[in-house]
Amino acid sequence: MNYPNKINKEYHKNINYANRGMDLEAIINDTNEYLLEKDIALIYKKPTPIGVVKVNYENNKQIIEKAYFASQSTLDYNGLYRGKYIEFDAKNTESKTSFPLNNVHLHQIKHIRNVIKHNGIVFLIIRINNLIFLLNGPDFIEYIDTHDRKSIPFNFIKEKGYELEYNYTKGLNYLKYVDLIGGFENEKN
Amino acid sequence: MNYPNKINKEYHKNINYANRGMDLEAIINDTNEYLLEKDIALIYKKPTPIGVVKVNYENNKQIIEKAYFASQSTLDYNGLYRGKYIEFDAKNTESKTSFPLNNVHLHQIKHIRNVIKHNGIVFLIIRINNLIFLLNGPDFIEYIDTHDRKSIPFNFIKEKGYELEYNYTKGLNYLKYVDLIGGFENEKN
Repeated sequence: MNYPNKINKEYHKNINYANRGMDLEAIINDTNEYLLEKDIALIYKKPTPIGVVKVNYENNKQIIEKAYFASQSTLDYNGLYRGKYIEFDAKNTESKTSFPLNNVHLHQIKHIRNVIKHNGIVFLIIRINNLIFLLNGPDFIEYIDTHDRKSIPFNFIKEKGYELEYNYTKGLNYLKYVDLIGGFENEKN
Repeated sequence: MNYPNKINKEYHKNINYANRGMDLEAIINDTNEYLLEKDIALIYKKPTPIGVVKVNYENNKQIIEKAYFASQSTLDYNGLYRGKYIEFDAKNTESKTSFPLNNVHLHQIKHIRNVIKHNGIVFLIIRINNLIFLLNGPDFIEYIDTHDRKSIPFNFIKEKGYELEYNYTKGLNYLKYVDLIGGFENEKN
């Protein structure tokens, strides 16, 4: 069977189990490996930026001896799909009723606006209530611009977002909805 | 004057001086800041990936106490320009007669092929002989596929590449040639 081998076997039992127990980031990374392997899309997670404080040399190799994690000013994942630029981030929330907006940094919100303006495809993958949704960038921005709340209600995400499905062979089916929001003609993957 | 303030004043004297003395990566980073500020393109350098060996906590913050630099499997820069995916890397060579191919890792060559296949714009920015060229991905790959040499002769780069100019206000004019290789209609930037 041809599933990405880093998906923990525990995830394979069924979709509900996967949605409950999995690490969203690991699932997305494995999905992207599958998409790369099958030559469907080139999506990579950006490395976490670090601030290096101290470097030393061991056997002519640089060893970082002090550093800290910095925050990404863009979203974590970006790449190329059917000639188009796509970028997204994966967000978990424990809350069952809403997605707290402090999950998304201000510079990331600014960046989402920029990607939209430059005709890229940008979205969030949000896990809430044991379900996973793709929320398109313009819908996310529209909510922020028209509401004063510090969180997005689950109902808004359910209404505007696309519920994703997890399959142990193909991973998370997010490209199905990228086809839709990207204005691609329908084609089977 | 509106130049990106991280470009060292030393670079400002004239183009030749810049080409000789500058740090290519710094010039590209400053160019990209300028492009972002002027809302022309969204191009970011990916953080250098690191392998974290040891992490500790200080005042509830994670401090990396041992780590090493890993190599990027993609190219260093990618982003969005006029709706299109673009990706590139910056390479210096001390040699005056050729660009040694060991400057580009095998997984990066594979990645360049992938980006071409998926209709992205991909290229190298090469500094050689105190000149800076943009070498389009397909030309780079064509050379590799049709020659056994371990380096690309300067003459090939001069013939197939586009010589870039540095301007202390606008940085390096690489997007001029992206317009060309990307099949965009002519438009002033």
